[in-house]
Amino acid sequence: MSAATDTLSALHEKALAAYRESFPVHAATPALRALIGETLENPGGLVRLKLGLITGHALGLDAEASRRLSVSFEYFHTASLLLDDLPCMDDAHERRGRPCPHLVHGEATAILGAMAFINRAYALAWSALDTAPASRRSAAAAHLERCLGESGILDGQCMDLRFAETDRSPCSVARVALGKTVALLRLVLVTPALLTTTADRERKLLDRLSVYWGLAYQIADDWTDVAASRASGKTAERDAALGRPNYLLAAGAVSTLSRLDHLLRHTQETVERLTRERPAWQCLRDLVTQMVDATADRTARQPADGLRCA
Amino acid sequence: MSAATDTLSALHEKALAAYRESFPVHAATPALRALIGETLENPGGLVRLKLGLITGHALGLDAEASRRLSVSFEYFHTASLLLDDLPCMDDAHERRGRPCPHLVHGEATAILGAMAFINRAYALAWSALDTAPASRRSAAAAHLERCLGESGILDGQCMDLRFAETDRSPCSVARVALGKTVALLRLVLVTPALLTTTADRERKLLDRLSVYWGLAYQIADDWTDVAASRASGKTAERDAALGRPNYLLAAGAVSTLSRLDHLLRHTQETVERLTRERPAWQCLRDLVTQMVDATADRTARQPADGLRCA
Repeated sequence: MSAATDTLSALHEKALAAYRESFPVHAATPALRALIGETLENPGGLVRLKLGLITGHALGLDAEASRRLSVSFEYFHTASLLLDDLPCMDDAHERRGRPCPHLVHGEATAILGAMAFINRAYALAWSALDTAPASRRSAAAAHLERCLGESGILDGQCMDLRFAETDRSPCSVARVALGKTVALLRLVLVTPALLTTTADRERKLLDRLSVYWGLAYQIADDWTDVAASRASGKTAERDAALGRPNYLLAAGAVSTLSRLDHLLRHTQETVERLTRERPAWQCLRDLVTQMVDATADRTARQPADGLRCA
Repeated sequence: MSAATDTLSALHEKALAAYRESFPVHAATPALRALIGETLENPGGLVRLKLGLITGHALGLDAEASRRLSVSFEYFHTASLLLDDLPCMDDAHERRGRPCPHLVHGEATAILGAMAFINRAYALAWSALDTAPASRRSAAAAHLERCLGESGILDGQCMDLRFAETDRSPCSVARVALGKTVALLRLVLVTPALLTTTADRERKLLDRLSVYWGLAYQIADDWTDVAASRASGKTAERDAALGRPNYLLAAGAVSTLSRLDHLLRHTQETVERLTRERPAWQCLRDLVTQMVDATADRTARQPADGLRCA
């Protein structure tokens, strides 16, 4: 596991440099410059960028195209966080240990900053797609539009914000996760496959991995939200207080653990099948195995007894 | 002038159909579907779309590519209006005779709807650029990024919102107009030139036209803002009340009229030079002439005496 950890650590450094160096800022307005600069300085875990680099490398995508495409994935995510934190959405106060950008520079500048990351992301994605033959370019462009647009994460975010208006069933919770977390994973894992001579079978495995992994990730996150609230002695969980989707609150602890176990097993199985297709998926398998182990460990350490059940 | 009016009327119908038919909506969330649908039903004057079609036609750009590109220009503009109207920006209540979308569907849905128009606009622009050879594609993509991003309209909008923090000079007012109105005109008039075998000289004339026309348009708009406030008996003009840039309030009536006259003259001269380069610019010349005449007429009918002068 140590070699894998070393690889992932080197990957993080590479991702960090790419994230910070891919946005030459020209804005004349000091507030906009500051917001973009501070956001670049506080990048978070860069999960999508690193996953993009791993995927591009495994599939033999040109290194520079892979770097640009992967940075674009992370910039799209950055923009979504800037918007999600706004008072009209999650009304968050802190992001990555610092006051949210809209609290520092104002809501309008945060929105314009999000637009700036989106604009730069499209330019980077565009230049990455542009290296592929015409038919692959257009397949990848259509995929990008589906994942990022009103049939993808925008719909997911809108469902998320209006979850209280739904039947609040586990199925509705899963639909939000499919719209948000899964759509972004699909963007990251499948776009490089569409740009390269990847077999349909392998591309479908990547698509399936996005679904299992994305849903598992979101359910584990929901579990942590509830467990953390209980641990801090709060009476109401954040998701419940905001009327937001939470699988544990919708399905109860027993059903959630069983669902999570099922998804983690399928996540692991799918990445094993990918590694049999192409040994270059080893790095992705290491990353997935780390996540699966950590999630199983976390849910075991954060007991769910006494949690409100549907 | 009647033939020109007929042509412009047919052009409007064509633009209207293209605007409404280029966005197949897939969103599952009713609020997001409704917001996008209602926005498509209430499109305004479609100035940018029509200008794009005129420009594409004059330059011999493939008709379908021109249609997609022109719709993308208008969708980018639509998105900017959805955001501009938000409480943290202009805090508008009415747009095109109806309550603003954020008042009907909430701020979050308005922001997500704006993102949806931006996403669709990039997809349309992308498919239009994709028909050109590689070097032209990348020149046009770079131009799009410059005009739309943090070195273009985003910077202009941020300057606009923070105008009260500047020296409020006529020069600062003009800088905002260069960042917003001129950047969007540059997008519309110059992108088709970058996609076709347009001579540098002609492209530079289009760039110059964007500057003269954009500045003239903005100054005339500023004039109307002040004159309309006076006519309605309000003591304070809207721009002044919001601390927003207004050339008339910054430079005074005499200087503004002289500046506007200068800009309108250069706008007309530039479009005459374009028509000498290529007779196909006739339609653009008709449009510009209409605008120049209407502006001169409007400023004459809305007297400026007694206006606060810098």
